[in-house]
Amino acid sequence: MTSLRSALPLLFLLSLPAFAADPLPSWHEGANKQQIIAFVQAVTTEGSKDYVKPAERIAVFDNDGTLWTEQPAYFEVLFAFDEVKRLAAQHPEWQTTQPFKAVLEGDHQALAASGMDGLLKIIGATHTGISTEAFIDNAKNWLKQARHPKTGKPFNQMIYQPMLEMLDYLRSQQFKTYIVSGGDTAFMRAFAEEVYGVPPEQVIGSNFVTQYQLKDGQPQVLRTAKLAHNDDGPGKPESIDSIIGRRPILAFGNSDGDLQMLQWTAAGKGKRLMGLVHHTDAQREWAYDRNSQVGRLDKALDLAKTQHWTVVDMARDWRRIYPFDPAVQAEVQ
Amino acid sequence: MTSLRSALPLLFLLSLPAFAADPLPSWHEGANKQQIIAFVQAVTTEGSKDYVKPAERIAVFDNDGTLWTEQPAYFEVLFAFDEVKRLAAQHPEWQTTQPFKAVLEGDHQALAASGMDGLLKIIGATHTGISTEAFIDNAKNWLKQARHPKTGKPFNQMIYQPMLEMLDYLRSQQFKTYIVSGGDTAFMRAFAEEVYGVPPEQVIGSNFVTQYQLKDGQPQVLRTAKLAHNDDGPGKPESIDSIIGRRPILAFGNSDGDLQMLQWTAAGKGKRLMGLVHHTDAQREWAYDRNSQVGRLDKALDLAKTQHWTVVDMARDWRRIYPFDPAVQAEVQ
Repeated sequence: MTSLRSALPLLFLLSLPAFAADPLPSWHEGANKQQIIAFVQAVTTEGSKDYVKPAERIAVFDNDGTLWTEQPAYFEVLFAFDEVKRLAAQHPEWQTTQPFKAVLEGDHQALAASGMDGLLKIIGATHTGISTEAFIDNAKNWLKQARHPKTGKPFNQMIYQPMLEMLDYLRSQQFKTYIVSGGDTAFMRAFAEEVYGVPPEQVIGSNFVTQYQLKDGQPQVLRTAKLAHNDDGPGKPESIDSIIGRRPILAFGNSDGDLQMLQWTAAGKGKRLMGLVHHTDAQREWAYDRNSQVGRLDKALDLAKTQHWTVVDMARDWRRIYPFDPAVQAEVQ
Repeated sequence: MTSLRSALPLLFLLSLPAFAADPLPSWHEGANKQQIIAFVQAVTTEGSKDYVKPAERIAVFDNDGTLWTEQPAYFEVLFAFDEVKRLAAQHPEWQTTQPFKAVLEGDHQALAASGMDGLLKIIGATHTGISTEAFIDNAKNWLKQARHPKTGKPFNQMIYQPMLEMLDYLRSQQFKTYIVSGGDTAFMRAFAEEVYGVPPEQVIGSNFVTQYQLKDGQPQVLRTAKLAHNDDGPGKPESIDSIIGRRPILAFGNSDGDLQMLQWTAAGKGKRLMGLVHHTDAQREWAYDRNSQVGRLDKALDLAKTQHWTVVDMARDWRRIYPFDPAVQAEVQ
């Protein structure tokens, strides 16, 4: 039987404050995890030379390939294809018109032949000509029923558990977490709050010119077919400057489309963290970089090496990929 | 000598909770003040049928004429004129070219004759062709030295004390307060946080197309001369939809340029508050509405009456206009 005296030190251990818990349990111990935690501690410790006041703790994250999977194609493109099928009955002309015919017939060759022009027609037909609210409803309905072709899971479960932990960790340390992505802003708002905890006003993406109008006496904001902003590459620091109006102190991406956002973040004063998710895990997710059509990571990877940015090696750094993967045991440190 | 027994009730009164304090001391008692307080209490009282969760408590305010004075001209236009004078040495051609010559010579007639085209040239020459950061620095420098022609006060003191109290009150009740104004976003960011407590990411205005570029190896966001968005009239609900992604539950303006923002707010579900500042005080501020060049209030005033929106009568409702006005004594209720 344990004496009261010997039990006391144990009780003391149990009452250790919350910071002793691992904020990133799905990350393997190693240089990258250490870098992230050391950065957060440096900028949040009052009196530290790197201290940043809470209002300035802006963290920006790309979405496709950084917070969720982007293979075998951007999920928003798969949504657009499914929408063509759903809307086909209202558009009998699509049965004989490319690129819609190719989507309806599952004709990959004809679809590929229609190229970027074809894709833009599909995006236009499924993303515009309706109100923002109606579009978000469509995206939400799709997310409820559509399943990923490889895993059979809903697309909004194909999110990276280690990145969710990082978002939560940052918010617990009074960071404001933003999505800054090439995807359509309203499409991302259909799920960002629920799955990432990122509210609509912190989702920045590409968007169409909208038009306020009265329809049957009711005001609505209509999405026109004209692109207002392409939130990719240089478009990312441009939208951060325009919408947030502060330079982030942390930026995470996974492709050359994030290069300028990382570069813009890096050029600010004081301590910053720039990171890339490198897709190196053909078993559990996908492995691709310099020669990929989707999420090409080439120039940004070179820059990351010379600039000593954090390059996450998915296979080595992440103990778990998706929330639906088996839970992991605490790692011996 | 007062006995301990008789002093006890007084001590009890002194310990009343903070809500007993008047959140809007610069507002006269009356229907408008009551409406504002009743609205806030209704949407923030848990269990009330009108309850709105904190994340959805979005309040939007126009700036010119709603939060600060817009007479004798929009302050941003006065800034542009002063910038022409400051920059004239670098532009010898302005001495002989309109509309710059008119500004330099104080020739009001020639300036008026140059019309909207002339004004746009002045705005372009003073607002674009530089980085966002440099532009904000220019605006801050101007605010430090420029003085209002009537009061001799810095322009960022020409703000409405009753509206400051309303912003504070809303934030104390977990509202998120936004500026949604026709003014240039970056110009407003030069003072909004300091004077209104509204951070950069909650300032929405008109903006120019920007261009991310490397200059001498340093990244910068350059303001080009092309207008990206005119945040006036229908542009206001459009930017709210695009940038906030939630419909406000409270909107305040002062002119026909705010009509669509108020209409869009009003058309949402549940309890809302729509308000207009009616400039009725020729003694302490200005009196103008249907026939004014600046801040014309005509159609929105008619709509406010039929829709029972809150129309603030500046002369009757406000005990104090500016923070530099003499402090007011508590009013007998």
